Amino acid sequence: MTQNVEKVLIIGLGMIGASIALASKSKGIKVIGFDSSKDSIQYAINNNIIDDFSDSIDQINSKEFCRDIDLIILSVPPKQTLDVLNNLKDIWNSDTSITDTSSVKNHIKLEGASNILLSHPIAGSDQSGISSAKANLFTNKKNVLCDPFNCDKEHYEKVENFWKNALQMKIALMTVNEHDLVFAMTSHLPHLVSYALIDSIRLSNHDVEDNAGGGLKEFLRLSGSNPEMWRDIFVLNRVDLIKALAGMQVSLNNLLELITETKQIPDIFSHLELLNKELDEIKSYKEDKF
Amino acid sequence: MTQNVEKVLIIGLGMIGASIALASKSKGIKVIGFDSSKDSIQYAINNNIIDDFSDSIDQINSKEFCRDIDLIILSVPPKQTLDVLNNLKDIWNSDTSITDTSSVKNHIKLEGASNILLSHPIAGSDQSGISSAKANLFTNKKNVLCDPFNCDKEHYEKVENFWKNALQMKIALMTVNEHDLVFAMTSHLPHLVSYALIDSIRLSNHDVEDNAGGGLKEFLRLSGSNPEMWRDIFVLNRVDLIKALAGMQVSLNNLLELITETKQIPDIFSHLELLNKELDEIKSYKEDKF
Repeated sequence: MTQNVEKVLIIGLGMIGASIALASKSKGIKVIGFDSSKDSIQYAINNNIIDDFSDSIDQINSKEFCRDIDLIILSVPPKQTLDVLNNLKDIWNSDTSITDTSSVKNHIKLEGASNILLSHPIAGSDQSGISSAKANLFTNKKNVLCDPFNCDKEHYEKVENFWKNALQMKIALMTVNEHDLVFAMTSHLPHLVSYALIDSIRLSNHDVEDNAGGGLKEFLRLSGSNPEMWRDIFVLNRVDLIKALAGMQVSLNNLLELITETKQIPDIFSHLELLNKELDEIKSYKEDKF
Repeated sequence: MTQNVEKVLIIGLGMIGASIALASKSKGIKVIGFDSSKDSIQYAINNNIIDDFSDSIDQINSKEFCRDIDLIILSVPPKQTLDVLNNLKDIWNSDTSITDTSSVKNHIKLEGASNILLSHPIAGSDQSGISSAKANLFTNKKNVLCDPFNCDKEHYEKVENFWKNALQMKIALMTVNEHDLVFAMTSHLPHLVSYALIDSIRLSNHDVEDNAGGGLKEFLRLSGSNPEMWRDIFVLNRVDLIKALAGMQVSLNNLLELITETKQIPDIFSHLELLNKELDEIKSYKEDKF
């Protein structure tokens, strides 16, 4: 088995899967596609996003069919990721490596699959669907690998090399627990808060649309991704999401108590001084760390 | 009195004031500057941001001194805006128009000043200080005018024309109440939430910095502006800020109850279905309105 990937099969031809397909093809890798939507497959063929296609997960779930496929990449919503992996049991522990693109990992529980390494290529796009695919979507972006099943070295290296060389991504390794908590804080909570903020404006019946320039516009992109994917992420990562939210609420309450001057503070300080100091420290932390 | 501005005096040479100075000079308007920092005045002279300077607010507070000044623009933090206006009483109701740039308006309470129109030019920058000034900071951006003192028509038109012609801004008119509530929702709350989110990451001691790409990066700009200005905005607009926050918390709780499946819903639906529908509706609202 070579560590180089010459042929990949991509399950799920949304923006993520189709972008990986385009990047792969640009490096001369042959791409087979599968999608439950016949229209997506047709679009992918017509637009030269894939070279060939498969008819069903049943067909893919066969060592014979996968004989010359180096790597299978699942690009379906997080909940379906586990379902599809479970429907590919006949090719667990085969020479074909398997990876995914899910933004949540803790629900992916499998036993005895030495050819499965989990991946989270980070795109940061609010678009979805095959027509939003771009060959350079992931170029120079980060890909976080998780190895909860203790993947064989040859599979590990093949998947890692694929992301590095074919997609030109930067690689990091995390445990599943670390991954899900860090992304609860840096991605899932910001998205949840953005959905809530836009929803509250919707319910307020105030005409604010022309006035989004002073801060709201940053929240707009985050409330516009694929709702099915975000539903899955919120539900599957709800424990870490609530931990992250609790942390944010503590910080919010602290600021609010200074703003409303209801915080107990020593007489030698003023609420205004402390609020200024607090905002200044947050700004400095941000500038140092990000 | 001509409706055209030939000479302006700018009080406060931070990023906002100095950017207005640069834009004015680029249109051939003569600019006098004042700042409590001698260094800022020196920088402004050395970098050709202003043509001349004044030594003190006391000096400016004189009809004689202001005789040939068409317009005075206050670009100091929101709280100081009221203080400086009160220190310019000798030129209230003179031929010199007066305006400001504060992001909050409800605290600016004055009686009998027919030459004062309030302005809120919207920049959306996370920078501050004179060295961040740019001549085109406000070009094609929005400027919200508020007229709580029933400003004389000639002053109103002079200020409006200045923003339109010299700064090339788009003009809107709002009441002070409307302005402060709309900007609590679209700007002040997003900033407060961003400060809280960054603070919670700081307090968590998790190393998340490399993983800001998936959503957090949108929040980073908002937690980096001038802390003194944001302290003033939060404190002065706390009533509307808390109203906006209460609205966001209602929406957040609704989403959380669907995520944790603790919401009471009819048996004929599932929490997952309703969550999906909710996220979909928020996304559609966003796409329609913004």
